[in-house]
Amino acid sequence: MRILGIDPGSLVTGFGIVDSDGRRSVHVHSGCIRVKGEDLVVRLGRIFDEVSLLVETHRPEVLAIEQVFVSRNPSSALKLGQARGAAICAGVRAGLPVSEYSPTSIKQAVVGTGAASKEQVQHMITMILSLKDAPAADQADALAVALCHAHTQATVSQIPEALQGLAFRSRGSRRRTRR
Amino acid sequence: MRILGIDPGSLVTGFGIVDSDGRRSVHVHSGCIRVKGEDLVVRLGRIFDEVSLLVETHRPEVLAIEQVFVSRNPSSALKLGQARGAAICAGVRAGLPVSEYSPTSIKQAVVGTGAASKEQVQHMITMILSLKDAPAADQADALAVALCHAHTQATVSQIPEALQGLAFRSRGSRRRTRR
Repeated sequence: MRILGIDPGSLVTGFGIVDSDGRRSVHVHSGCIRVKGEDLVVRLGRIFDEVSLLVETHRPEVLAIEQVFVSRNPSSALKLGQARGAAICAGVRAGLPVSEYSPTSIKQAVVGTGAASKEQVQHMITMILSLKDAPAADQADALAVALCHAHTQATVSQIPEALQGLAFRSRGSRRRTRR
Repeated sequence: MRILGIDPGSLVTGFGIVDSDGRRSVHVHSGCIRVKGEDLVVRLGRIFDEVSLLVETHRPEVLAIEQVFVSRNPSSALKLGQARGAAICAGVRAGLPVSEYSPTSIKQAVVGTGAASKEQVQHMITMILSLKDAPAADQADALAVALCHAHTQATVSQIPEALQGLAFRSRGSRRRTRR
């Protein structure tokens, strides 16, 4: 499955594309959309266009994005919201399903603890995807949300198998009881 | 000039389309996009799609939207930002210029005072556009930002004429001095 992870921001939006079967993940492309110094409308248009272009070029099957629980001031929240709206709309317009993950789930999936630091996330992303250098923070966060989606989907897809196994064991034990 | 005014909100987004030559304005279409009770991604997708559809159907030449100076809490600001991002992207994607106006300029343009109440705006919109009934608040705000754009453009387009008049008078007075 090809996943596009997005870490939206009013000035820098990180993106990361990975191919994953849930167990092994391969880095496809990642980077940052920098829109500093431009007019708000131009900025939002660029985020929308660049995400649309990524979808068109790399054909991901899903867009994964971090859920935001704002603790910052209202002005930053508004700016972040606008950038987030632009990125989500680019995915929705291209017909992609959009999955949201909490910051804790993302860190948990990548580092193994929900309280991981930015540096730990960057380090683990470099290791998991066998990158030469550690990616910039926004880029690492985008790759992290993509990997979180890959791991979560793998877990979800394993549930039916696990339930089947459980049913089999349950039937087996019943059989044994009847004997 | 045909103007699409948008009053974005996380639950209700008002829209209003007017035709205006800067002096006289005619109501074309207005209403509300209600997205209450749906998932965030679906909500943003619907705002984007509905605004895109309005642009496609009514072919406005410009999108006018209220500037936001947030005094509310960060969570509301984030939600409003996302809705605003979706609406702006729909305009940008359709190739429309997007103009932003402060709440004070909008009230000033429609009521004549920047401190006007919501009811005064609704009343004046009903009068200016000769509507049968007062429109809902979000719809009235969207029509108000469209009218604000119409009036502002009219003023801007009158500036060269006014300057020409001034230059003529200035040349005239110089001639008189030389006589």
